[in-house]
Amino acid sequence: MNPHVRHENSAADLDAAMQIAIGAAESARGFTSPNPAVGAVVLDAAGRIAGVGMTQPPGGPHAEVVALREAGDAARGGTAVVTLEPCNHHGRTGPCSRALLDAGVVAVHYAVGDPNPEAAGGAETLVSAGVEVTSGLRAQDVERGPLRAWLHRQRTGRPHVTWKYAATLDGRSAAADGTSQWITGPEARERVHADRAKLDAIVVGTGTVLADDPRLTARTPDGSLAAHQPVRVVVGLGDIPPGARVLDDSAPTLVLRTRDVDEVLAALADYTDVLLEGGPRLAGAFLAAGRVDRIQAYLAPLVLGAGASAVSEAGVQTIDGALRFRHESVETIGPDLLLSLVPAVSENPDSHRT
Amino acid sequence: MNPHVRHENSAADLDAAMQIAIGAAESARGFTSPNPAVGAVVLDAAGRIAGVGMTQPPGGPHAEVVALREAGDAARGGTAVVTLEPCNHHGRTGPCSRALLDAGVVAVHYAVGDPNPEAAGGAETLVSAGVEVTSGLRAQDVERGPLRAWLHRQRTGRPHVTWKYAATLDGRSAAADGTSQWITGPEARERVHADRAKLDAIVVGTGTVLADDPRLTARTPDGSLAAHQPVRVVVGLGDIPPGARVLDDSAPTLVLRTRDVDEVLAALADYTDVLLEGGPRLAGAFLAAGRVDRIQAYLAPLVLGAGASAVSEAGVQTIDGALRFRHESVETIGPDLLLSLVPAVSENPDSHRT
Repeated sequence: MNPHVRHENSAADLDAAMQIAIGAAESARGFTSPNPAVGAVVLDAAGRIAGVGMTQPPGGPHAEVVALREAGDAARGGTAVVTLEPCNHHGRTGPCSRALLDAGVVAVHYAVGDPNPEAAGGAETLVSAGVEVTSGLRAQDVERGPLRAWLHRQRTGRPHVTWKYAATLDGRSAAADGTSQWITGPEARERVHADRAKLDAIVVGTGTVLADDPRLTARTPDGSLAAHQPVRVVVGLGDIPPGARVLDDSAPTLVLRTRDVDEVLAALADYTDVLLEGGPRLAGAFLAAGRVDRIQAYLAPLVLGAGASAVSEAGVQTIDGALRFRHESVETIGPDLLLSLVPAVSENPDSHRT
Repeated sequence: MNPHVRHENSAADLDAAMQIAIGAAESARGFTSPNPAVGAVVLDAAGRIAGVGMTQPPGGPHAEVVALREAGDAARGGTAVVTLEPCNHHGRTGPCSRALLDAGVVAVHYAVGDPNPEAAGGAETLVSAGVEVTSGLRAQDVERGPLRAWLHRQRTGRPHVTWKYAATLDGRSAAADGTSQWITGPEARERVHADRAKLDAIVVGTGTVLADDPRLTARTPDGSLAAHQPVRVVVGLGDIPPGARVLDDSAPTLVLRTRDVDEVLAALADYTDVLLEGGPRLAGAFLAAGRVDRIQAYLAPLVLGAGASAVSEAGVQTIDGALRFRHESVETIGPDLLLSLVPAVSENPDSHRT
């Protein structure tokens, strides 16, 4: 190969590299807060993968630096593919834009721009230095994927709240006698635990603690604790029994003696990715306050015909006042479905009936 | 082309022909009861489509005969592709096996064998006469599609019952104040009317008539009545107001003063494809009796937090007694989802938790 003729990466090559970067970012979720979980791939001058990296725990290097170290000299004349615009600021680590220039990278393709004014400007720095820079590659996959909660917090100042519930076809989260284990199949339960291991906090009401005595830990299929445990947050005015499992030493637990949604979110201001697991009244309060940013509904192919619903007291009296969402994805998980929905806001006016 | 060298239809050609036959059969649904809605395609000796037919209303010719008439002399040396095994009996029309032989067809490919002992034997007659015969092409599409209800009735002696309901994410079929128009979007409502026009009967309880005063007719998007109207069946012990819309002259109405599921099904023994639209107690009775053969759940991306469920009194007390189904398909219809489920019976033991 003639070293003076630069290899042009095809769109398919860059797309494949971005998919790898997204996977790397996803695998870092849970370990990087408050930093975003970013993934990076460095291609050498011939377009071959020379290094893959992901954001390390706080204080450690960013994804680009890890990928550049892996690539070593092979980065010279090469290309970086990154899920987020390379940072431009001197935090605990040097700016990634500088590291990319020092390594001799000649092209950078990132998915999503950095909304944080302190860190942004990386693209500009690179362009000024003569690097070819593009943005937008697989941006939606990144925005809905590994950067979803972080971008939400950057834009709103609030944690991203996912309300998760499991219910039967007729909307029951428990049978007439209160039993609810198990509505969903083992595949869905395994998925719930894998997702928990990527979260910053799990929120439940005191009623759920009293009724189900959950551990709220992230466990692997063999029952052992996952490497990362979210903070357990118990919300409400009821008393928690001293022997409650949620108070054991497997993860930290925060007890908030309030039912006010904004007070809860203020107390969780340092967290990015928060899961609301119930019970029905707490879910209703978050929904009524417009503070559910995503719904994850595990829908089991069962009919009960009686039993509690997953949500109550959402402040809706009539059908025209229904809280409106739109379907984002539907997955089959064992015998169950996992529906993901987001608020039907003005970005999609067609979803409102007129 | 040398007329002595027979054209061999490729698997893809036969598959494409069967898809056309399935479409033709589907378009006949609603008009053919008690006969099955069958579709047929005749390919000429060169493999070109020479005729397409579907079952005509009772007394009229079967699908094969219609397709053969369309094909005329082009059927000689040709191939017939049919959704159901050609019949062998002298009913109101002659046997289709005979008609295929008389037309000079040399190959017949059908999807599903005829379970009716009076009509079966068509394949044997054809094979005895030297015709190449295969079965099974797209059999599942036919069994789940245009022949679903008819096959069910042939096998069980009972009408096929689909329970259809619409609900929010939290399983509400009405808001706290009883309003329920509209939970689903216009696309779903249009689909419901198109499906009604293919049915033999629609069943509701007297409570639904009192609460909603539905017409239960199949209407086109412009509001006019569809060409075929299912019989409207009102079940229960409550009195129906004389001015109820369900008693108007747009379709026949059958009033059954019972709540016993088997009495209802006995009264509907002459029907094949029956839709159960509710209310909750009637749905619960059919579900508890194991007489729901399919669930169609229109799931709207709404949360209400209060209001009636689509089903009550299904005889289930505890989670282990839940009525179990399995997902057959998920469709996106406008902003809503349409989930189709069938009972989780022994044919799929994995769907039972052990």
